[in-house]
Amino acid sequence: MKSFSVEDINAIVNGEIIGKTTNKISGLEQIKKANEHQATFIGNRKFAALWKDSKASLAIVNDNLDIEPGENRVLIKVKNADLAMAKLLESFTPEPPHFETEIHPSATIDATATIGKGTRIGAGSYIGKDVVLGENVTIYPNVTILDDTTIGDYTTIWSGTVIREYSEIGSHCIFHNNVSIGADGFGYRPSDDGRGLVKIPHIGNVVIGNGVEIGANSCVDRGKFSSTILGDGCKIDNLVQIAHNCVLGRSCIMAGSSGLAGSVTLGDGVMIGGSASIKDHTTIHSGATVGAGSGVMNDVAAGKTVLGYPAVDSREMLKQWVALRKLAR
Amino acid sequence: MKSFSVEDINAIVNGEIIGKTTNKISGLEQIKKANEHQATFIGNRKFAALWKDSKASLAIVNDNLDIEPGENRVLIKVKNADLAMAKLLESFTPEPPHFETEIHPSATIDATATIGKGTRIGAGSYIGKDVVLGENVTIYPNVTILDDTTIGDYTTIWSGTVIREYSEIGSHCIFHNNVSIGADGFGYRPSDDGRGLVKIPHIGNVVIGNGVEIGANSCVDRGKFSSTILGDGCKIDNLVQIAHNCVLGRSCIMAGSSGLAGSVTLGDGVMIGGSASIKDHTTIHSGATVGAGSGVMNDVAAGKTVLGYPAVDSREMLKQWVALRKLAR
Amino acid sequence: MKSFSVEDINAIVNGEIIGKTTNKISGLEQIKKANEHQATFIGNRKFAALWKDSKASLAIVNDNLDIEPGENRVLIKVKNADLAMAKLLESFTPEPPHFETEIHPSATIDATATIGKGTRIGAGSYIGKDVVLGENVTIYPNVTILDDTTIGDYTTIWSGTVIREYSEIGSHCIFHNNVSIGADGFGYRPSDDGRGLVKIPHIGNVVIGNGVEIGANSCVDRGKFSSTILGDGCKIDNLVQIAHNCVLGRSCIMAGSSGLAGSVTLGDGVMIGGSASIKDHTTIHSGATVGAGSGVMNDVAAGKTVLGYPAVDSREMLKQWVALRKLAR
Repeated sequence: MKSFSVEDINAIVNGEIIGKTTNKISGLEQIKKANEHQATFIGNRKFAALWKDSKASLAIVNDNLDIEPGENRVLIKVKNADLAMAKLLESFTPEPPHFETEIHPSATIDATATIGKGTRIGAGSYIGKDVVLGENVTIYPNVTILDDTTIGDYTTIWSGTVIREYSEIGSHCIFHNNVSIGADGFGYRPSDDGRGLVKIPHIGNVVIGNGVEIGANSCVDRGKFSSTILGDGCKIDNLVQIAHNCVLGRSCIMAGSSGLAGSVTLGDGVMIGGSASIKDHTTIHSGATVGAGSGVMNDVAAGKTVLGYPAVDSREMLKQWVALRKLAR
Repeated sequence: MKSFSVEDINAIVNGEIIGKTTNKISGLEQIKKANEHQATFIGNRKFAALWKDSKASLAIVNDNLDIEPGENRVLIKVKNADLAMAKLLESFTPEPPHFETEIHPSATIDATATIGKGTRIGAGSYIGKDVVLGENVTIYPNVTILDDTTIGDYTTIWSGTVIREYSEIGSHCIFHNNVSIGADGFGYRPSDDGRGLVKIPHIGNVVIGNGVEIGANSCVDRGKFSSTILGDGCKIDNLVQIAHNCVLGRSCIMAGSSGLAGSVTLGDGVMIGGSASIKDHTTIHSGATVGAGSGVMNDVAAGKTVLGYPAVDSREMLKQWVALRKLAR
Repeated sequence: MKSFSVEDINAIVNGEIIGKTTNKISGLEQIKKANEHQATFIGNRKFAALWKDSKASLAIVNDNLDIEPGENRVLIKVKNADLAMAKLLESFTPEPPHFETEIHPSATIDATATIGKGTRIGAGSYIGKDVVLGENVTIYPNVTILDDTTIGDYTTIWSGTVIREYSEIGSHCIFHNNVSIGADGFGYRPSDDGRGLVKIPHIGNVVIGNGVEIGANSCVDRGKFSSTILGDGCKIDNLVQIAHNCVLGRSCIMAGSSGLAGSVTLGDGVMIGGSASIKDHTTIHSGATVGAGSGVMNDVAAGKTVLGYPAVDSREMLKQWVALRKLAR
């Protein structure tokens, strides 16, 4: 466990120290649960009122709050306690899981695969034919990477994730557990006798940019032909569905359990709320926001916020909700 | 296959035997599909009417139903056929999957891990550095448990599940297939140049009580700092999302495809219906119920039932639905 | 990379060739992204207008569109460009992932398992006691198949998928990555002291017909007793939940992130839209359609289309949506 003095911590958050403590800080905790070796954060009056009864020796505090440190306790006043917290978290990050050897002997690596310098592969992982892994890639145990896939430098793949053949993954990506990349898209045609369905082969692939994070148990399907594309910096939460031939611009955000049907296009910086779903072949233009739980059936203009099911402009939807509430009375 | 006499079965369900049969019972089946060596259940008039044409030799029947056994067939009348069924199912449970050896030679177990007495580990599973498994833990094949995780006695982890580092799991838990525990929460801040997103490290962990069951392909993310907590006896269905820093009390139920956004608090005995989703930082107090498909955007008082999107008191929502139906006419 | 002449391609799609090109075709691409060695598809006026500026040497074109090939470029006119595309995709399908040996030495196969002729098993996969795999089954790396499961000929199981004990899987099925088949259903009863929940054992199994496809990270739970059943030709997308004791007829379609609660019955040819969810114990009769995002709380008659939350006849729901929009103004 790392241990920090108040001065060490202030070197990171760059605030104003008020008070003194003899305690060293070895962790971060919520204000009610913290002990005397932990620091906490106070971003509003509600939390400020809890400081008196907290056991924490140190709080990072928004500088507009009126609050005293107390005996053997310290406040560090900063402009933005949330931002200071994000920076401190980096310093307190514990060691990631240990690799006993760079390439675990129980991993199966095809003789034709190319493995970059500093790349580590955990127990039980499978690296297929002609796969190319860049430098300093981290593959945790029990990952499966199928043939002809390429993965860029410093990308991390957590256990249980499967990346199908011909995928192209950028550098500095993080794929969490049990992610599925490159499964066939969902496409069928009626059989010639009209009595069943025939699978449409999906011969496209998945192309993922740099700095993309994909949450646990999320899915990105391969294109029917051409590619399903996630632009640089996209952040995808858990249990998200991205269907075949979707194209996401840069730095899009999709919250948990949301989904895109086939051939949806997102511009740059689009935000999709949790559990929202988007109809196939629609376009959500750059900077637009889709509220949580929405069902989007039409294109959304740049910068607009839509909400509800079926989704419309968010102010219009709030009016609908109010009108219905009144009507019911 | 086990085989039971009518008397064996009545010793379990403790009812009144009416009629006689020479057939032994070796399984349980629905009334329309049962054969003469199977028992079935009759809890209402609809099923009672099907008894005449059923091939089952034995039915467990609610004692308020007027029904005759027929030739070479038996009824056992009980107060509650559903409860009797639950008890019988325990007796008919077949053998779970076989372990040829306690620790399969193809499992990778770090030298620093502690494995309790009677604990079994299947083929291809990975047990990381300083992991502590209690006694009589069952780890099926191809499970991944990363460093410093602890798991209590008699817990069962099914194949494909991944538990990330520093998780604390209680005893008598069941985690089904492809569950993801302890992936990073979904948190970013704008980069200093305002043109992208910077990942907020998640240094907290997941703490799960005793007797918790988590369904297939569900996710519980680790805390940003502090812990994501599931209290004793929580029952979580398949494809459920529990985001970073959620805190669930005792015996909460979350049905399939439901989700909690970050820092949601559930009291004790909260019930969340299928496909419902809950906004971040809200509190659902003890004994409250959220109807299936709801989108909850505000705190819910203890014992209250909410419904709809956006969710309100369920009677109020039913009125809204009726009012809208009338309006459309 | 395979390479085709215009005549080779027309032998597949059986249309009318207009124009000439010296270029060979080695792939398919969208009209804006294609190069001179790729073919593309033009099914409507919007795409026809893009042909002039496309680099593709060949387009498959609906024969009702008025369009000229241009220099060193070819059109093949067909009745239905979409259907022609589906057929062409089969010819352009690249090699699936490579198996170095039929049975990888790192796979664990119980001595009692039966493995059919031509069946291949990838690295790290586990095949349990008394499992029966038919002929020409393909098991990719890191799959887990537990005891007493049977799988029919020509079925393909992709990496990460887990099939629990006693499952019965047909022939010509495809299960994508991280699918969970046969986990326990979600059923509890109050404990005798009324202070907690007791698990109801699930001793049924999963029975899946022929030609069934199940998408990545989807779940099919085992029956409480009796079976959860998917009929021949059902097509299930990603992240779909099918709870215990559901029964699906032939050729049902469930789109991404949809879900069935316990004991739901679907007739033949039922279509469930993306993110829709269906209440437990309801029946959706043959040929019915459930719109995307719907929450179905009652039985749906054969051939009917329902929509919305709560779902009603789709025309009725569209009227409700219009009425509410007017009311809000």
